Parts: sequence; C-alpha cells; structure tokens
Amino acid sequence: MTAEAADREARSLLTHVVEPATVGVGRLVAQYGAPDAVARLAAAAPSGRARDLGRPEARAAAAESLRQFEAEGGRFVVPGDPGWPSQLDDLGDESPFGLWVAGRGDLRLLALRSIAVVGARASTDYGARVASLLSTDLAERDWTVVSGGAYGIDASAHRGALAGRGSTVVVLACGVDVAYPTAHEALFARCADSGLLVSEAPPGELAQRWRFLDRNRLIAALTRGTVVVEAARRSGALSTARHAADIGRTVMGVPGSVTSQASVGVHELIRGGATLITSADQVITEVAGDPRWVDEPLPGLADVAPLPEALGLVLALLAPRTPLTVEQVALRRELTMPEALALLAGLELRGLAARSSRGWVSVLD
Amino acid sequence: MTAEAADREARSLLTHVVEPATVGVGRLVAQYGAPDAVARLAAAAPSGRARDLGRPEARAAAAESLRQFEAEGGRFVVPGDPGWPSQLDDLGDESPFGLWVAGRGDLRLLALRSIAVVGARASTDYGARVASLLSTDLAERDWTVVSGGAYGIDASAHRGALAGRGSTVVVLACGVDVAYPTAHEALFARCADSGLLVSEAPPGELAQRWRFLDRNRLIAALTRGTVVVEAARRSGALSTARHAADIGRTVMGVPGSVTSQASVGVHELIRGGATLITSADQVITEVAGDPRWVDEPLPGLADVAPLPEALGLVLALLAPRTPLTVEQVALRRELTMPEALALLAGLELRGLAARSSRGWVSVLD
Repeated sequence: MTAEAADREARSLLTHVVEPATVGVGRLVAQYGAPDAVARLAAAAPSGRARDLGRPEARAAAAESLRQFEAEGGRFVVPGDPGWPSQLDDLGDESPFGLWVAGRGDLRLLALRSIAVVGARASTDYGARVASLLSTDLAERDWTVVSGGAYGIDASAHRGALAGRGSTVVVLACGVDVAYPTAHEALFARCADSGLLVSEAPPGELAQRWRFLDRNRLIAALTRGTVVVEAARRSGALSTARHAADIGRTVMGVPGSVTSQASVGVHELIRGGATLITSADQVITEVAGDPRWVDEPLPGLADVAPLPEALGLVLALLAPRTPLTVEQVALRRELTMPEALALLAGLELRGLAARSSRGWVSVLD
Repeated sequence: MTAEAADREARSLLTHVVEPATVGVGRLVAQYGAPDAVARLAAAAPSGRARDLGRPEARAAAAESLRQFEAEGGRFVVPGDPGWPSQLDDLGDESPFGLWVAGRGDLRLLALRSIAVVGARASTDYGARVASLLSTDLAERDWTVVSGGAYGIDASAHRGALAGRGSTVVVLACGVDVAYPTAHEALFARCADSGLLVSEAPPGELAQRWRFLDRNRLIAALTRGTVVVEAARRSGALSTARHAADIGRTVMGVPGSVTSQASVGVHELIRGGATLITSADQVITEVAGDPRWVDEPLPGLADVAPLPEALGLVLALLAPRTPLTVEQVALRRELTMPEALALLAGLELRGLAARSSRGWVSVLD
C-alpha cells in the first residue's frame, strides 16, 4: 500500500470512529500523520467506540466503506489532495480528518467563491423569501451558496441557488447518502446535480444532534463569509457565525422586523459588529474587498473547468491564514525552488494566491 | 430698556426677518451681540425681507409680537436665559437667535434627557408601531421624546410618548401657534399639555418647505441622540441624522424588512456606522454610557421641578462640546471665582456638568 493510500484509509477509519473536532486526535494526526496517529491511539487502548481503531475488522470495514463509496462515484477528500479545500486548514487541530463528498461539483473550486447562507429552522415567510432571493442573486453572480440541510433558511438558500442556476453545497451532519430530514431527499439530489453534498461523517452515519454544532464549523471555514438570515436569540445558526468570526471570516446579518423573534439573534449579531447586508452585491463587496472579484469575476472559477494540474496541486497546499514559504511548497510537492516559485506566481497572476511577509497564502479573505 | 430686554427684542426681530441658520448673521450676533448686529445689518441696507431690520415699524411689530406671545403664556427663550438649552450652542453660528416655546414643560430640563425619534412621513404600519412603542418605553423611563410635527413617524412618536405619560417636544418649522398639518391640531395641544411646542420661526409664521431641513438641526442638537425609525433612500429624515452626526450626537437606526423601501435609508445609515437599536433600553444605554443614567435615573430631571436658580443660571451657560473656564462663567454671571467654582461643583455633583481639560461642559454626551 502506498503512503497516500495508507493515509486515506487511516483518515477514513478516523471519520468512522472519532467524533468530529476532537482536538487531541487532530493534534496527533498533525504531528505523526494519520496512520501513525491511529496506531498510537489504538495502543493507548481507548474506551468506547474509539477501541475500533485497533481492531482489524473495523479497519477492514472502513477500507471497504471507502472502496464502495468511491465505486459509487463519491470521493473521500483528504488534506493534500488537489480537491482539498485548503481553507479548512484554518480550523487547525479541529480540521476534519477528511470529507466525504458526493455530487458533480469540485469542492475546492466551488468553495473558492462561496458564501454561507444560514439561519433558523423556524424561519418566517420573510426569512425564507430573503434567503432564497439572496441565494439566487449570489448564484447568478457565480458565487456558490453553502448551507446545512435543515428545514427553514438552509433549504430556502439551496432552493434559491438552484433557481439562480448556480451551484450549492449542502454540508450535512450525517452521511451524504443519508437524507436527513427525509423530506429533503429530492432537494439534496438536485443540489448534488450541480453542486455537492459534503460531510465529515462517513456514509451511512445517521444524524446525531450533537454533530450539528460541529458541522457548523465546516460551513464557516469552507466559505469566505457567513450571512445569517434569521436566528432567534441563542439559535444554533449563530454558532456558524461564531465559528466564522473565530477564524477571521466575514460575518454578516440580514435585518428584519424588531418585533420578530426570528430576527433577534441577527440584530444582536449586528450590534456586536457583524455587517448589516441587504443584497447579494453588498455581500460580495464585503467578502471580496478586491474589486476584481466584484466587477470582473474571474471566469470559470465556479465552473468545473479545472486549473492546470500542477497549479491545482500547489493551490491545494495554501491556506488563507497560514502562510507557506516557497521552500515548504517545493518540499511538499517535490519541486525545485524555481518550479515552486513559478507555480506560485502563476496562482498569483490568476488572483488565487498572494505573497505575504510571512509566505504564500490563498486569497480567500 | 435693559440690555437684556434689548437683546430679546433684537433676537425676536431677527427670527422675524432672517432665515434660520443664516451663518453670516449668526457670526455677527456672536461677535457684536444681537442689538448691535441688527444695527449693522440695517446699516448695510440688505435686500428683501431683511430690509425690515432697519424699519421702526418692523421693530415695533416684532416687539408687539413678543409682548403678545408672552401675555398668552408663551416664552421666547434666548441664549443666557436659565431656560435656554445650552446644547444648542454646539450649532455654533447656526444656533437659533431664540426659540419660541409654548406649553407646560421646561425646555432645558426636558432636553437634558431627550431622544429624537424621527422618520419618514410615508411610514408603514410597522414603522408607525415601532415609533410608538419605542417612544412609550422612552417616556416610561423618564426620557423626553423630541420630533417634528409631520404625519408618519413624527406623529407616532408623539402619540407613543403621550401613551407612556411622558413629555414630548414638537419642533415645528412654522410658528408654534400654527397647526401644520392642521389634522395635528389636537395632537399638538395634547403635546403642549405635558411637553412643549418649539420653533425658531415667530408666531404666525406659516410652514415653508425649505424650513424643514433647517428645523432638523434643532431636533438633532436639542437631543442626546437621534433614532431614525423609517426612512427611504434620500429621505429628509436622514438630514436629522446627518446633523446629529455633525455635532457629535449619537445616531441610531431601527432595522426593518430588507424588502421594504421605507427601511432602505435606515439600513444605509447603519451600514455607515449608526448603531442598530431594537429597544428603548438599548437607546438609553447608547446615549448615556454612564450607567447612572440607565440604572438610577436622576429623579425629577424630566419633571418640571426646577434646579436652584443659581445652579440653573450657570448650567444654562454650559454646552457639551464648548468648554468654558471658571473665569468665563464668573464673568458672565457676575460671580466671584469661588462662587462660580462652587456652583459648577454643585452641577458636577448632580451629574449635570463635567470638568474637561479645557474647561467646564454640560454632560449631554
């Protein structure tokens, strides 16, 4: 087995047996690599479900689940893959071990120009209408909409993006082959047709209540900014905004009637510093200060047309807030320094990477 | 005739013949005093209505209008009067020559704890309801509501304040004895019963379109902060907010539906830096950072109970942004330095004045 295959299998196993955002495990993986981390965890004889890390039958089952998922057209994307959305690295030790992805879109490319449109399940007609209109306008401007799969604002956002003939990404707390809520089975299928279903939970995993809050960090990290459309005080939708703020993403809110409980949380968010927005253009201007993104959208970024592979491999290494030196890029991609520099410059020309005083970053914020 | 009476008559004449906020005239008055300024202007043979400044019959008519207004229970308040709201001095050369006041309230005391609640004439049901609820809550917390006399948000604000058994101040662009719009005659009478009607236009003066924008500077300057409830893009209500920002008052806005044209101007205001507010408590906290004002309202400030006269005379000199030295206070009130200092300290103890590095100011912001 190649080192790459071993890494993928170990990460697949981790998604099966370790709860998302378990920081200690993330640190072990970052330090020793996934296969060695799994071996160390297994040797430490963990309790509960994590004991599976050491059982041959659990390893075999995880490998089989991976094989079968890919045979059915799905992808398991891990750090270092060309398709890995490197902005997730901003989550540090809480970055997912890997993402299970189903659908036609390219996750990394879709995420490059993406906005999270989130809000309460218990939305009002007003909230549902605004989420839908906003998402249609974003889609028509070639921005990807990212949201959860819940009733209310999430579903309205996806429907709006589909109406705008755009791509929309559903980030699920259950496996991407589990339609939860079941009423959204057809909606999810339509989203997968032009966009993606994404989860850090492996196929077949059912929705667990505690996973929704962890899932929200992925929505925040995948996107350049989060728009909260409606949220009551202490609504779970606000956790996406908190995650977004924590990792330096732009947080925005749609105002509503002060007499509506469904807007109370959004108004608090705006009073706390989030930007009040009333249109897709304001959202795009807010997240993409560089007017290139607003006035002359780079063609094809939201399409599936890929970058030259060599560029894509380098871009996949870069994160917006964790600069890499040319040496680090050269080392990780087995390039000479001049080759690495040429590829980084190519990304810079395309507006996808930028040189900071501490190294190279992707330009996601 | 005493110097004081001559000043009042000259200022009364100025309100009759000079348009509000005519900066050159304000500067002359500040430099030479009102009687001398009138003489100089008359000698300069001005054109138009201002020629009346030199005509004996115009002077006699202005004096008679003053005498009659006061005989009917009105007051003409000028700078230096104990009842003068000294925060108007923040308007500099655009400060009014004097204010014509009708009603039971004490303008200076009412204005000390006051909030402007303003907005569009073409308000929605939502805007009218929120303006009214907000004003009721402000009134119940002993804050004075100040607004214009127009249909829409203005009228709803006054009605709400009256419902809260509070004082409300109507700042008119016409004379305080002219009910404009006429449909508000009964409303204005009720406002005068517990609050005030105020104008810089003399009695009998009809509403002129161009006066409304000038009037807005008085609403902004009299109050500690301005709340815009509803305003379409480029609504005149936004001019009150601009005046408020210009003189360092707090500007606040009530959010609404992003699909409502009546909220577009308010949302722009908030995006430009105004504070989103959703309740009277938020308004009070915003304008009165000092928690004394919020948690333990000073008793009686909004009532008619007057300060000891000596304190009132000194307080009337002070403005929030134009510090006076103890010497200046002593000179203007014909006090010894220790007397002036004792009175200033008395005001400080009551939370009405504060010592800054450049002198004494009133604590209106």
